[in-house]
Amino acid sequence: MSSGLIQEIFEPLQAMRLIDPHTHINPHQPASTTLADILGYHYYTELAHSAGLAKSQIEEPGLAPKEKVRRLIPWLAAIENTAQYSWLLEMCQVFFDFQDDRITDDNWEALYDHSLRKMQSSDWEQSVLERSGLDQVYLTNDFDDPLQGFDTQKYVPCLRTDDLVFHLGKPSVRERLSKTTGVTPSGAAALKNAIGGLFRHFKANGARACAISLPPDFSPSVVSASAADPIIGKVFSGQELSSDEHSTLSRFVFWTLAKYCVEYKLPFDLMIGVNRRVYEDGVFQGQDLYDHRASLIQYKALFNAFPTVTFPVSVLAETSNQELVSYSWIFPNVVTSGHWWYSNIPVYIERDTRGRLQAVPITKQIGYYSDMYKLEFALPKFAMYRRILAKVLAEDFVMGRRWTVERAVQLGRQVLRGNVEAIFGDCG
Amino acid sequence: MSSGLIQEIFEPLQAMRLIDPHTHINPHQPASTTLADILGYHYYTELAHSAGLAKSQIEEPGLAPKEKVRRLIPWLAAIENTAQYSWLLEMCQVFFDFQDDRITDDNWEALYDHSLRKMQSSDWEQSVLERSGLDQVYLTNDFDDPLQGFDTQKYVPCLRTDDLVFHLGKPSVRERLSKTTGVTPSGAAALKNAIGGLFRHFKANGARACAISLPPDFSPSVVSASAADPIIGKVFSGQELSSDEHSTLSRFVFWTLAKYCVEYKLPFDLMIGVNRRVYEDGVFQGQDLYDHRASLIQYKALFNAFPTVTFPVSVLAETSNQELVSYSWIFPNVVTSGHWWYSNIPVYIERDTRGRLQAVPITKQIGYYSDMYKLEFALPKFAMYRRILAKVLAEDFVMGRRWTVERAVQLGRQVLRGNVEAIFGDCG
Amino acid sequence: MSSGLIQEIFEPLQAMRLIDPHTHINPHQPASTTLADILGYHYYTELAHSAGLAKSQIEEPGLAPKEKVRRLIPWLAAIENTAQYSWLLEMCQVFFDFQDDRITDDNWEALYDHSLRKMQSSDWEQSVLERSGLDQVYLTNDFDDPLQGFDTQKYVPCLRTDDLVFHLGKPSVRERLSKTTGVTPSGAAALKNAIGGLFRHFKANGARACAISLPPDFSPSVVSASAADPIIGKVFSGQELSSDEHSTLSRFVFWTLAKYCVEYKLPFDLMIGVNRRVYEDGVFQGQDLYDHRASLIQYKALFNAFPTVTFPVSVLAETSNQELVSYSWIFPNVVTSGHWWYSNIPVYIERDTRGRLQAVPITKQIGYYSDMYKLEFALPKFAMYRRILAKVLAEDFVMGRRWTVERAVQLGRQVLRGNVEAIFGDCG
Repeated sequence: MSSGLIQEIFEPLQAMRLIDPHTHINPHQPASTTLADILGYHYYTELAHSAGLAKSQIEEPGLAPKEKVRRLIPWLAAIENTAQYSWLLEMCQVFFDFQDDRITDDNWEALYDHSLRKMQSSDWEQSVLERSGLDQVYLTNDFDDPLQGFDTQKYVPCLRTDDLVFHLGKPSVRERLSKTTGVTPSGAAALKNAIGGLFRHFKANGARACAISLPPDFSPSVVSASAADPIIGKVFSGQELSSDEHSTLSRFVFWTLAKYCVEYKLPFDLMIGVNRRVYEDGVFQGQDLYDHRASLIQYKALFNAFPTVTFPVSVLAETSNQELVSYSWIFPNVVTSGHWWYSNIPVYIERDTRGRLQAVPITKQIGYYSDMYKLEFALPKFAMYRRILAKVLAEDFVMGRRWTVERAVQLGRQVLRGNVEAIFGDCG
Repeated sequence: MSSGLIQEIFEPLQAMRLIDPHTHINPHQPASTTLADILGYHYYTELAHSAGLAKSQIEEPGLAPKEKVRRLIPWLAAIENTAQYSWLLEMCQVFFDFQDDRITDDNWEALYDHSLRKMQSSDWEQSVLERSGLDQVYLTNDFDDPLQGFDTQKYVPCLRTDDLVFHLGKPSVRERLSKTTGVTPSGAAALKNAIGGLFRHFKANGARACAISLPPDFSPSVVSASAADPIIGKVFSGQELSSDEHSTLSRFVFWTLAKYCVEYKLPFDLMIGVNRRVYEDGVFQGQDLYDHRASLIQYKALFNAFPTVTFPVSVLAETSNQELVSYSWIFPNVVTSGHWWYSNIPVYIERDTRGRLQAVPITKQIGYYSDMYKLEFALPKFAMYRRILAKVLAEDFVMGRRWTVERAVQLGRQVLRGNVEAIFGDCG
Repeated sequence: MSSGLIQEIFEPLQAMRLIDPHTHINPHQPASTTLADILGYHYYTELAHSAGLAKSQIEEPGLAPKEKVRRLIPWLAAIENTAQYSWLLEMCQVFFDFQDDRITDDNWEALYDHSLRKMQSSDWEQSVLERSGLDQVYLTNDFDDPLQGFDTQKYVPCLRTDDLVFHLGKPSVRERLSKTTGVTPSGAAALKNAIGGLFRHFKANGARACAISLPPDFSPSVVSASAADPIIGKVFSGQELSSDEHSTLSRFVFWTLAKYCVEYKLPFDLMIGVNRRVYEDGVFQGQDLYDHRASLIQYKALFNAFPTVTFPVSVLAETSNQELVSYSWIFPNVVTSGHWWYSNIPVYIERDTRGRLQAVPITKQIGYYSDMYKLEFALPKFAMYRRILAKVLAEDFVMGRRWTVERAVQLGRQVLRGNVEAIFGDCG
C-alpha cells in the first residue's frame, strides 16, 4: 500500500550528504585495502565462527588477506539471512561492480581480484567518501593519540575514555598516561590535572565529544578527592586494587571526565550496557555480550549533577529503548543516539525509531552512526537506516497523521544530519 | 490494504459513549478555563523544558495564563513530532475551530482568544462531555476529600492511597488523617480503624475503586499488628522512621487497604513502576521516571492472599506488558488496565493491545483510561486508542482469523466500555 | 499488498512433513480419547478458571469426560479472542468436521459425540499423525522411564532432568533414582555414576536430547566433588537441606548432566525462566509464571565450559529474545529454539522470528516445537507458526531484500525441519 510513498520519502533522504557521528575509523588508513579488511570485520568473523569456522582458521598468525577471505567464503552460506550479510552484498555491488546475489566459492576470487584493483587506485578513499556522501567522519581516539597527520575537519577527533575509567589497573595504561601527560599522579589532584591535559589537547585539535562504553552494572556517583587519594596513590605505585577500590577509582575518573565536559563544552557520549569478554574463546572483537538488566535509573545522579553537559545515550539492548525515550523526554541534557551493535538490526531499529519519533523532542535525536572500522561500511549501514526511517515517516506521519511528504522528509533530514550539527557542532 | 476495513471498524467504536475509568479531574473545575490549562499539562511543559525552555519561564510566580502560553508556543516546533502534540492539535481543531496544521507564533494568539470565548460559555463543561461522548469520569480523590458539591454519578470517586502507604512520615499527611478521622492512631488497631473510616466514607459516596501508584521496588507482604504497633506509635508521635521502618509501615498499610477492598467490595487499581523525583529540577509533575526492572512476581503474595479482590493492573514500562498478559491469563483476580503514561504512545499501545487481545480472557481487559487533568483531553486520547484498537481488530481478527466486522466491533466495545461497567459497576 | 505472496510461501511450508522436537506426549496414549483430553489441556482450563470457572468444577474427583467438557463450554465465550481458542477451533474443524465458527452450549454436544466416534476408530493415532504431517515426535521422559513398549523411531526419547536437578530433596524422587539405578548414592562419585547409568539407558534407547526447565534465578557453575559430597550424603540419608545446600546440589547435578552430554554427544535443551507454583490455587499445570528479569549472562560459565555441547535455548519472556539472538550470534554452541509457553502467541512469535532470521546464522535456529500433551495440537500450533514464518519471509526477505520466493521457502524449510535433523539427528 505504501511502497510508493516510502520510496518518495526515501529518495531525498538517500540523496543527502552525511556526518557520521561515531566510528572507529583509523584516519591514517580509513578505507579498506583488500576484501579481507571488509570480511575481517568482526560482524563476519564472529558469525562465521558461530556457524562453525574455527577461530584458529581466522586468526592464524601471518595469514595472507586472500587466504583469509578464501577460508571465510564457505561459511557465508550459513549467514546469508543476516542483515550483516546484506551490508556485505550491497558494498560489493556498489563499490566493486558485483552482479550476483550471492558470494560463493565460484565467484569470490574474481570479486577479490577486481575489488583489489579498485582499492589500489590512489583516489579510493576519496571515491568512497564521495559515493557514500560523507562530509565528516567522527573518530574514537585513544587518550594518548597525538591527533597529527590527518585532516581533523574531515576526520573529527573524539576522546575515548574506557581505558581511563576502567583500566588504570593495567600497567600499560598507566604508562601511556604518564608518557602522554608527563605525570605519574600520586593523588586525586594530580590525576585530575593529567586528565585536564588530555581534554586541552583534544579540544585544541578539534575534538567534538568525549565518549565511553559502560558495563550494565555501572552506576556513576561522586567520589571525594579524599576517598580517591589513597587508591590513586596505590594504583600508580603499582599495587593491586581490590574490587571495591577499582569501582571507586572508576567512579572518580568518570565524574572527573563529566566535569571537564562542562569546562570544555563537550558532549559526553554514553554507550551503555556492554559486558566485555563474555565468550572468552571468541574471535577478535567477537567476545562481548550483555545483560539486558541495565537501567538508566543508574544514571540519575549524573544527569542531575551535570545539567549543562549533553549526554547522547546509546543503549545496547532494545529493552532499554523505552527508558531512553522517557529519559530523553524528561531530562533536557539526555538525547537519543543511534542504534548500537546488537540493536543495529532492522527489527529493533524500526521499533526504536518509532518510539523516539513519537515521544522525544525532534531536536534531541541523533538518528544514526555507523560504528564502522572501514569507510566502505557507512554506505550500506546508513542505507538500511534510511529505508527504515522512510518507512516510519511514511506510516506514522504521512499516513497516520496526514503530514505532507515534504514535512516528513524535513523531519528525516533533521534526525539524519541537522541534529548532529546542532549537538556536536561548533560549540565553542 | 486494510485502511477501508480499519475505518469500518473504527466508526462504530468512535460513535460509542464512554466511561473514563481513571482521571485526575477536579470535579469542581473539570474543564479548562484558558489555553494555559491545556498547554500547562505536564506533557507539554516537560517536553518544552526538555527541548530547552527554562523551568523558571514556565513556573514564574503570578504568571498570567496568556503569557504562559506565549512562552510555550515557540517550543512547540521542537515537539510537533510527538503523539502528545497530536492530541493538542486535535483538541484545538475539534473544540476551538482551529484550521491550521501547526500552532505557531503567528496564529496562536487568535487561537488563544477564540478558545477563551468558547471556554467562557456557561455550558462549556457540558459541551465537552457531550462532544467527547463521556457518560462518567472516574476521579482520583485524596483520602480526606469530603466528596461534596459535585455529582458523584457523573464524577465517580476513587480513593487514592499513595499518601497513606508512602507518606505517613510527613507531618502534613498525619495531620490530614487525624483531622478527617478524628483519630491520632497509637498502634495498628487504631490505624486500621482510621483507614476503615475512610473506606466507609468513600463507599457511602459512591466510590468505585481504591487506587495507588507504586515504585518499581515495592513488594507487598503481610505485616503483623505486633510488628507494626511500635512503628505506628513512633511515627504518630512525630519521630523519624528508619528506612526499614518506613518499608514495614508501607507494607502494613497497603495490606490493610487490600483487606478493606474485600470488605467494601472495591477493585484495587495498582499502577506499578514509577520512581518519583528522578529529575529533581524538572517542571511540576515532570520529574518522575522509572526502572524497567520491576516484575509482577513481587505481587505474588498479594494476588494469592486476596482472591476476591479484583486488581486492575497498569504497568509503566512496555517490558512489563507480557508479564501483565501472563499474570492476567493465570490469576482470576488480575485484569489488564489501560496504557499508562510513558507507555501511552502509539507504538507501545499497539503492541500491548495485540498481546492482551491474543491471550487474556476478553472479560478481563480494561482497554483505556485518559489519566487526564482537564476534560478536553479525553477526546484525543481515546481517539488515539480507538484508532489503534480498530487497526488491531482489523489485522488480527478480521484478516488474521476471518471474524466478521460486526464481531470484531463487538470485541472492541467490550474492551472500551463493557468491561469497565462489569468490573467497576454496581458491585454492591 | 503481500497476502498473495505470503500465501505463495505458506503453501509449500504447509505441505512439508515435520519433526516435532519437543512435546509432552505419552507414547502409550499419544492421541486424545475424548474432547476432554483436548479441552482439559491446561491452556483451556487455566483460561476458563481465570475467566471465572471454579477450580473445583474442573478438578472434581471422578468427573466424567463429557461432564467436564459441559462445564467448560460456557466459559469459552470469554476466551474466544485468544490464540489458544483459535487452536481449539482449528482442531475441531480439521479433525472433527466441525462447521461452525464458535463452540457453544447449542452445538457442543453434537461435536462431542461426533469427535468421540472418530477418536474411537482404531487408526485414530495414525490418522492424526498423517493429517498433521508428523514424521517424528520427541518426548520428555522421566529419568526412570523404562522406554519400552513404543516405537522410539517415531516417538523419540529425551531425558527430562528437572527432578534430578531440583527435587532430590523429595523422598519420592530419591526412591525413584535408587530403584531405577540400584544405587543410593552416599557422595558425589556415586551420584555421578547413577546419573551416568541414566544417560547410558537413554542413549541405548535412541534418546536425542537431555532437557530441563529452569527458574529465572538459576545460574549454573561448577561445584567440586568435595563440596557436594557432604550434601549428597545428607540428602540421601533423608535429612533436610538448607536453601544454600539445595542450591549447591542443584548446580552440582546440573554440571554433571552437561558433562554427560559431552560424553554421550547429546544436545542439552535449556528452557529458561519459569517460576513454579506462583498461583498456588491455580488449576493443574496452571500455576506457573515467571520473572522477566532473567539474563543469559547467568549461563556465561556454562557456555564457555562446554564448547562441544549444543544448547538449544528456549526463553519464556519475550524480553529475553534479543539476548538469545545475540548469544546465538556469538556462541557457536548456543542455538535458538522455538517459542515457549507464554511467548507462544502470534505477536511475540512474529517479532522473535524476525530478530532471529535477521541476525542468527540460519543453521542455528530451531523454528518451532509444539510442547503438546496430545497429538491433535501439533496441527494448529505448527500452522500458526507457519503462517507467521511465511509472513516474515515475504516481508523481510522477498519484499525487503528481493529474494526469490523459492529461496525464501528454502530458508523456511531449513528452520522448520532441516535444522532439527542437523542438530538432533544421528549424532553417533
